[in-house]
Amino acid sequence: MIQYNEQGLVPAIAQDRASGRVLMMAWMDATALERTIATRQATYWSRSRHEYWVKGETSGHTQYVHEVRPDCDGDALLLVVDQVGPACHTEAATCFEAQPALLTDQFAD
Amino acid sequence: MIQYNEQGLVPAIAQDRASGRVLMMAWMDATALERTIATRQATYWSRSRHEYWVKGETSGHTQYVHEVRPDCDGDALLLVVDQVGPACHTEAATCFEAQPALLTDQFAD
Repeated sequence: MIQYNEQGLVPAIAQDRASGRVLMMAWMDATALERTIATRQATYWSRSRHEYWVKGETSGHTQYVHEVRPDCDGDALLLVVDQVGPACHTEAATCFEAQPALLTDQFAD
Repeated sequence: MIQYNEQGLVPAIAQDRASGRVLMMAWMDATALERTIATRQATYWSRSRHEYWVKGETSGHTQYVHEVRPDCDGDALLLVVDQVGPACHTEAATCFEAQPALLTDQFAD
């Protein structure tokens, strides 16, 4: 049902349940997914640190997981979460607000 | 600014501008991203067909792109789009509604 890539990973998109904002994208292996479902605390696989990473374990910026939804071909996951504090390690509310946009409706962002 | 993977690709998450729904995730290479920005029509790279894919070119279910936002470390993109018709090839409104959820707040989905 889940199509993991050659590294055994699947991308997981976290969306804030209350605001609908897309918070971040990270990666899960089968164990991270199992732990997320069992604990309802979003748990990812860190590709740089090569370790499991319970979101907010250090920062307190946890994600309580209400829903996990695979996409039509099972190679991406959507997590609907309650985000505590900013989602991004930069302290931006979402990881998609930490850098200038590549395209917007305005001439200047 | 964009961190492409070893295949030269970056995941792109499409979110509906009006509803905030997460529609789908697909992949872009640098050319697909350039074409998307130039035309404002979401253009992806098909990993299975090995070709560029203007979303909706066949189905009519196009995505007009209002914003393209890289995440904090540049290895994912968020596209804010106007989705025409269903986003998913299954005719589901979003690709994340085409399969049963792995976790919900209800006992049965």
